Amino acid sequence: MVRFLVLYNTPEDPAAFDRHYREVHIPLTRKLPGLRRYAMGRHATAIRGGEPYYLIAELEWDDMAALQKAFQSPEGQATAQDVPTFASGGVRSMVYEVEEL
Amino acid sequence: MVRFLVLYNTPEDPAAFDRHYREVHIPLTRKLPGLRRYAMGRHATAIRGGEPYYLIAELEWDDMAALQKAFQSPEGQATAQDVPTFASGGVRSMVYEVEEL
Repeated sequence: MVRFLVLYNTPEDPAAFDRHYREVHIPLTRKLPGLRRYAMGRHATAIRGGEPYYLIAELEWDDMAALQKAFQSPEGQATAQDVPTFASGGVRSMVYEVEEL
Repeated sequence: MVRFLVLYNTPEDPAAFDRHYREVHIPLTRKLPGLRRYAMGRHATAIRGGEPYYLIAELEWDDMAALQKAFQSPEGQATAQDVPTFASGGVRSMVYEVEEL
């Protein structure tokens, strides 16, 4: 399984961010081809390292090939292009193979 | 479900970090009471926001009460006390309820 992890910093206008995320970004993300799971965390409590991320999105695909196919699709491009329109606090995202321990 | 997400920056000595993580930290973490799932990601590819985290650990508990119980247990304290002994690049960690989308 591969993970696409998206870590959003606190935005300039949290209410506007939340509204856009719910009304626009979730519907776009749900259309991604091959997406197996999509979940988010909000109101995180920091344990170490200072302020927690404002919103954490967890997306899963079966393998890297399926994820790349989704990223290259028209739906993937539309989702990617939407991010700078609302992520006013900055965002850090990465992809990795998940190893069960 | 609640997530404990642990984001490790690149350490000073990656080989020593990897060895300690495998030989000491994984065995300690596996003993945490109520732990439902434990997985990690390495060799992440950055999508946005610069360098990816060096190692991402994903831990799951049924609910916040179960997680707090684990953190307060002797096993939880041993696991927490181990982190500064190997996380030489710094670490950012947080806890949140996971909302399926």
